[in-house]
Amino acid sequence: MNAIVAIEQYLASAKPAQLEDLKQWLRIPSVSADPSRKGDVAKAAHWVFDRLSELGLETELIPTQTHPLVLASTPPVPGKPVVLVYGHYDVQPPDPLDQWITPPFEPDVRDGNIYARGATDDKGQVLTHIQSLAAWIKSGQQLPLQIKFLIEGEEEVGSEALSEYLKEHSAKLACDVIVISDNSQYAKGQPAITYGLRGIAYFEVWAHGPKQDLHSGVFGGSVTNPGIALARLLASLHDANGEVQLPGFYDSVVPLKDSERAGWAALKFEDERLAKQLGVSELAGEAGYSTLERRWARPTCDVHGLMGGYQGEGSKTIIPARVGAKVSFRLVPNQDPAVVAGQFQQFVANFKQPGIRFEVKDLHGGPGVVMDPDSPFMKAGERAVTSAFGKSPVLMREGGSIPIVADMVRRTGAAVLLLGWGLDDDNAHSPNEKFCVDDYYRGIQASAYLWHELSQVTQ
Amino acid sequence: MNAIVAIEQYLASAKPAQLEDLKQWLRIPSVSADPSRKGDVAKAAHWVFDRLSELGLETELIPTQTHPLVLASTPPVPGKPVVLVYGHYDVQPPDPLDQWITPPFEPDVRDGNIYARGATDDKGQVLTHIQSLAAWIKSGQQLPLQIKFLIEGEEEVGSEALSEYLKEHSAKLACDVIVISDNSQYAKGQPAITYGLRGIAYFEVWAHGPKQDLHSGVFGGSVTNPGIALARLLASLHDANGEVQLPGFYDSVVPLKDSERAGWAALKFEDERLAKQLGVSELAGEAGYSTLERRWARPTCDVHGLMGGYQGEGSKTIIPARVGAKVSFRLVPNQDPAVVAGQFQQFVANFKQPGIRFEVKDLHGGPGVVMDPDSPFMKAGERAVTSAFGKSPVLMREGGSIPIVADMVRRTGAAVLLLGWGLDDDNAHSPNEKFCVDDYYRGIQASAYLWHELSQVTQ
Repeated sequence: MNAIVAIEQYLASAKPAQLEDLKQWLRIPSVSADPSRKGDVAKAAHWVFDRLSELGLETELIPTQTHPLVLASTPPVPGKPVVLVYGHYDVQPPDPLDQWITPPFEPDVRDGNIYARGATDDKGQVLTHIQSLAAWIKSGQQLPLQIKFLIEGEEEVGSEALSEYLKEHSAKLACDVIVISDNSQYAKGQPAITYGLRGIAYFEVWAHGPKQDLHSGVFGGSVTNPGIALARLLASLHDANGEVQLPGFYDSVVPLKDSERAGWAALKFEDERLAKQLGVSELAGEAGYSTLERRWARPTCDVHGLMGGYQGEGSKTIIPARVGAKVSFRLVPNQDPAVVAGQFQQFVANFKQPGIRFEVKDLHGGPGVVMDPDSPFMKAGERAVTSAFGKSPVLMREGGSIPIVADMVRRTGAAVLLLGWGLDDDNAHSPNEKFCVDDYYRGIQASAYLWHELSQVTQ
Repeated sequence: MNAIVAIEQYLASAKPAQLEDLKQWLRIPSVSADPSRKGDVAKAAHWVFDRLSELGLETELIPTQTHPLVLASTPPVPGKPVVLVYGHYDVQPPDPLDQWITPPFEPDVRDGNIYARGATDDKGQVLTHIQSLAAWIKSGQQLPLQIKFLIEGEEEVGSEALSEYLKEHSAKLACDVIVISDNSQYAKGQPAITYGLRGIAYFEVWAHGPKQDLHSGVFGGSVTNPGIALARLLASLHDANGEVQLPGFYDSVVPLKDSERAGWAALKFEDERLAKQLGVSELAGEAGYSTLERRWARPTCDVHGLMGGYQGEGSKTIIPARVGAKVSFRLVPNQDPAVVAGQFQQFVANFKQPGIRFEVKDLHGGPGVVMDPDSPFMKAGERAVTSAFGKSPVLMREGGSIPIVADMVRRTGAAVLLLGWGLDDDNAHSPNEKFCVDDYYRGIQASAYLWHELSQVTQ
C-alpha cells in the first residue's frame, strides 16, 4: 500500500503541528451551558469550520436557535461507503475551578497527557479524524471514500438544535456508517470498540401531602408524611435482588449472549479496584450479573436528587407539603423509553399512600443502541485500531447514553462505529480533564487506516 | 373588685395602641436560624427590653454565645406566688416567600386576623402578658404578686443559650408557676388549657456512597444509589400499622388513662373537617388511636426535609455522593430524648446497605411534660380564661414541643400553665402565619385576670 506508506511518513513528521492545533482549539472556552460564553462557543465553531475549509471540504456553518452546527463533506466516491464523523466542539463547565492544577483553558502537557477542558471530551478525539483526513490530503493521496463531518455545539446540553436539524435535513447526512470518538478505551493499553449504548428515561416524581407545610408537633400523627411516602415509593423500585419492579420492565430486554458474557468475563474486571477508585466499601447491583454486565447491558434505576422540605442548617419542624426526587431508568437495546415511561406512570399510580397524591413528570428519554459486532464495518474498525495501537480492540458496550446517536441511526439507517481513544480516568466532566498525547497520535493513525479499511467494505 | 374594674376600663381604650405595639415588633425579621438576621434578632430583643424597662421592671439584656436573653421582674410580694412568664422573640424562617399573600414582615390586618411571621408564634402571644401587666400598672393598681419575664431568642432553633443559662442561674428564675402562651385554643370559640406537651428528638441522617458524584450512565449498576439506600432506611421507620420501629421505642410510654380518652372523645373531633382544612384526602397515623390521641399523647416520627444530589431544573445524570434527610421523633412524657437518640443511632447502625455509610447527626432534643390538671394553679387559670373568653376552657394536651419547658420545670420545681391564645390553623411554621386580633385582646384580658387569680392561690 503506497498510499499508507506515504501517509505514515507524513504522520511521523506532523506530530508537533498536530499537538499545536489541539492546543489552539482547547484555548477557546466553548462552554455551551454558560450563556456568557456564547461568543467563545461560536469561536470554537469557526475554528473547526476554518480547518475543514482549508482542507478543501465543502463546509457550512449552520446557524441554529442556539449554537451553530458545522457540516463538511469531501466529494462523493461512487461505489464506496459514505462515512459521517460526528463529534462536538462544546465542552462541560470547568467548575470547580480551584481544583484544577493548571487552568482549564490553558492546555498543559505533563506526564504524557494534555490537560484542559475538552481535551478528551470531545475536541481531542474529534480532531483525530480531521488530522487523519489532512494526512491523506496533504500527502497527496486520493481519498478512497466520501467523508462527511457533523460537529455540533451543544452535546453537553442536550443536542436540541441538532435534533431539530435532523428532522428536516437527514438526507444531507445520508451515510452508511457513523464514526464517533467520544468515549474511552477499555483500559490503558487496551483499545476497544464499543458496540452498544444504554438508553434513558428520566423523570421527576413528587409526593404531595397537605396543601402547605404543617407544624410537625401539632400535626404529627394526623397525616401521612410526604417524605416517608416518597421514601416508601423509592424503596419499592427494586426488590432484594436489585431487580427493577416496574411490571413488564424486563419483557423486551434482550438477554446477553453467552459469547458476550464470556468475552467480558475474559476482561478480568476487578470489582475491588473499582470500589477503591469510587471510594465505596463494596460494589452492588442486580444479582446474577457481573459488574460489567450490569453497567453495559442491564437496565438500571437511579435516584439523582432528593428535594423538598427544610434543607437549611439546623432544625425546622415541618411536615413538608411536598417532596420530590429525580429518578431515571437506564435502558438497554429493545427497551422503548415511551413504554418504560408508561410503566413508571402506572407503577406510581398503583402505589397508594393515604392522603398522598403522587405526580410524575416525564423529563426526557432516548433509546439505547446496539450494533452487530460481526458486521463488516466493525471488522474494518478492528483492523484499523489493531494496526495503530498494536493490539486487538476488545468489544465492549457502554453504560452511558448518547441520545443523538440513536436519533441519527433511526434517521439515516447507518451503522455506528464507536471508537473511543480516551481513558476512563480522563475526568471528562471533572477538574483536570486530560487526554493521553500518544493516544491522540494513535487515534489519528487509526483513523487514517480506517478510511482505507472502510473503503474495502462491500455492502 | 375595684382594681379589675379599673383595668377593664383601661383595656377597653388601649386596643389600638396594643395592636400598633404588636405590628412594631412583627416588623423586625428576627429569624434566629438565619445568621444574616443576627442584627434583626438583637433588634427584636432590644424592642421587648425597652417595653419592659418602660414599665419600670428591673430588666436585663443578657448576652449569650448566640442571641440575648431578656429577663425582667416586678418587685417581690411576700406571701404570694411568684410567676415566671416565658416566651420567645425569635421566629421561624419565612420560606417559601412566594406563598405569602402579604410580605411576612409587613403585618397586615384582614378578616379580623393579623398576618405576619411571628404573629402567633410567639410575639403576639407573649405580648399579651406584657400588655396585661401594663394595664395593671398604667391603671394605677397594685400588682398582687411578683411577675418575672424570661424571653429568649432561639426557641425556634433549640434554646441552647437559655439551657446553658439555666444551669448557672436557675435561682434567679425561682418561681412557683411558669406561664406560657405559645400554643393554641382547642378551636375557634373554645379556649383550652394545655396540661401536656410532647418532647422531641431531632436528627439529620445522611447516606454516603461514592466519594464524589458519579455519571449514572457509566456507573449505574455498579454501586448502591445513596438516594435509594436512604429511601429504604426512611421507609423502614414505620410498620404497616404506623408504629415506629426503633426497638424499645414504646417501652417507657405511659398508656393513656381511660378518663383522658373519654374526655377527648367527648370533644367530638371531626377527622373529615381537619382533612379538608389541611388539603388531604384522608388522615393517617398509628392504628388503634384517634387523631387527637395520636397528636397529643402518642409518639410519632416525621421527615422534615430531603436533600442532596441534583435539585435544579431539568435532568442531570448523577449518582449523588450523598443525600440526607431531617428526621424527628415526637416524644410523650416519660420518653427520654437521649434514650431515643441512642435507639435511633442503633437502628441506623443496624440498617445495612452495601457500600453505603449512614451517618446520624443529633441536632437537638427535649423531653415532654405533663401537669396535674387538678392543681390550684390550673384552677386559677381556668377561672381567668373563663372570665375573658366567656367559656370554660377544655383540658387538652398538645402535640408540639417546648423542650426548654421541661428543663425549666426540672430546675425550678415550678408548675406550668400553658394558656394558648392561638388557633390550630394559624400557620405557625408556614406561610401566612396569623393571629386573631380579638384573641390577642382576650388573651390580654385573661392575663390581667390571671395575676389576680394566681395571687389567691395558697400553697
